[in-house]
Amino acid sequence: MFPNKRVQGMIGRKVHVEMKGERIALEGVLRSVDDYLNLHLSAANELHAGEKKRLLGSVVVRGNNVVLINPLKE
Amino acid sequence: MFPNKRVQGMIGRKVHVEMKGERIALEGVLRSVDDYLNLHLSAANELHAGEKKRLLGSVVVRGNNVVLINPLKE
Amino acid sequence: MFPNKRVQGMIGRKVHVEMKGERIALEGVLRSVDDYLNLHLSAANELHAGEKKRLLGSVVVRGNNVVLINPLKE
Amino acid sequence: MFPNKRVQGMIGRKVHVEMKGERIALEGVLRSVDDYLNLHLSAANELHAGEKKRLLGSVVVRGNNVVLINPLKE
Amino acid sequence: MFPNKRVQGMIGRKVHVEMKGERIALEGVLRSVDDYLNLHLSAANELHAGEKKRLLGSVVVRGNNVVLINPLKE
Amino acid sequence: MFPNKRVQGMIGRKVHVEMKGERIALEGVLRSVDDYLNLHLSAANELHAGEKKRLLGSVVVRGNNVVLINPLKE
Repeated sequence: MFPNKRVQGMIGRKVHVEMKGERIALEGVLRSVDDYLNLHLSAANELHAGEKKRLLGSVVVRGNNVVLINPLKE
Repeated sequence: MFPNKRVQGMIGRKVHVEMKGERIALEGVLRSVDDYLNLHLSAANELHAGEKKRLLGSVVVRGNNVVLINPLKE
Repeated sequence: MFPNKRVQGMIGRKVHVEMKGERIALEGVLRSVDDYLNLHLSAANELHAGEKKRLLGSVVVRGNNVVLINPLKE
Repeated sequence: MFPNKRVQGMIGRKVHVEMKGERIALEGVLRSVDDYLNLHLSAANELHAGEKKRLLGSVVVRGNNVVLINPLKE
Repeated sequence: MFPNKRVQGMIGRKVHVEMKGERIALEGVLRSVDDYLNLHLSAANELHAGEKKRLLGSVVVRGNNVVLINPLKE
Repeated sequence: MFPNKRVQGMIGRKVHVEMKGERIALEGVLRSVDDYLNLHLSAANELHAGEKKRLLGSVVVRGNNVVLINPLKE
């Protein structure tokens, strides 16, 4: 299963997304993903140093700035 | 709804855009967006640490340097 | 009007360009732009912290390292 | 053998992946890779300064943020 | 004249190239350039803070990491 | 000779590769290169501040994170 299919399989689940830049991470429910790994998350929170810092709600994330994605256990 | 369609649905609304680099954020009215997530914002402000720092007015933003976009409640 | 058309409409005008990296900004007259937002500026100055620092003259800027472009009032 | 074929030849093996950004490295079993060098790793660990810091488990890594990949001896 | 044509017009001339990252600049004779602004320079020097730091000789530069290019007066 | 052809001409030779990020450089024998300047190096060493720091052995390098490549005299 190719990496992008693996991400498509996470739709509807809560995911952890590490972004490029100063250690931003996001957690939210994956609503959609395209071939560039652009992501649409709902109920997203921004985390710094592992702590929830800010509620973003609905957010679109640019794929090239995604470092890694992993599904969260619920 | 794919992530880029989600952004198209924000046209005419005020959006918050986090840029790559030293924690720049922009807020402005989304005028247009293309498939690369290049954005045209009007009445845009640059924010640092959540505070309005500078009025930019009309601004074009390069999509690959966009980290995330979310709509602002008005 | 798509974002790249918006930039084409700035040809012949003085523009402010924020670059990726350590807060470099450029100001100059936009001579040409392509679909990648590669820019050709003439009479360009490099600015640091809003102050003119260095005259570059004619300069080509790689589009993916452009963070934002806005027209300057003259 | 082209570089991407070289990475395909590491499928099923434990690999070390250096990511762009603040010195993140990952180690895990390479499950799949595509032409962009997007990677799917299982049993992945995040390393800082060469020490295991956090178990990530199953993780998808965006290819453009991969600096280098090398196979680990087992 | 499109930006990449402008760079092609610098072939055979000494150019100044600012790279992404920690303020690296290069100066050398532009030997070739392609549509991605990948550059081949000969007799290249690496500069830090405007001072020649290291002779590189013949060097290939990846276009996406080029911030700007300008011709040097000789 | 286009820049990528110039790199193909270095196959079988020892090369110095500067990577994006915190001043990582690699030296190794160039085994293969593709049009994205993805590289396969063998007998590669990681250098920090010009000193050999770590033997990597066989390593694949993502082209977009390559800043520059130059051949080493042997």
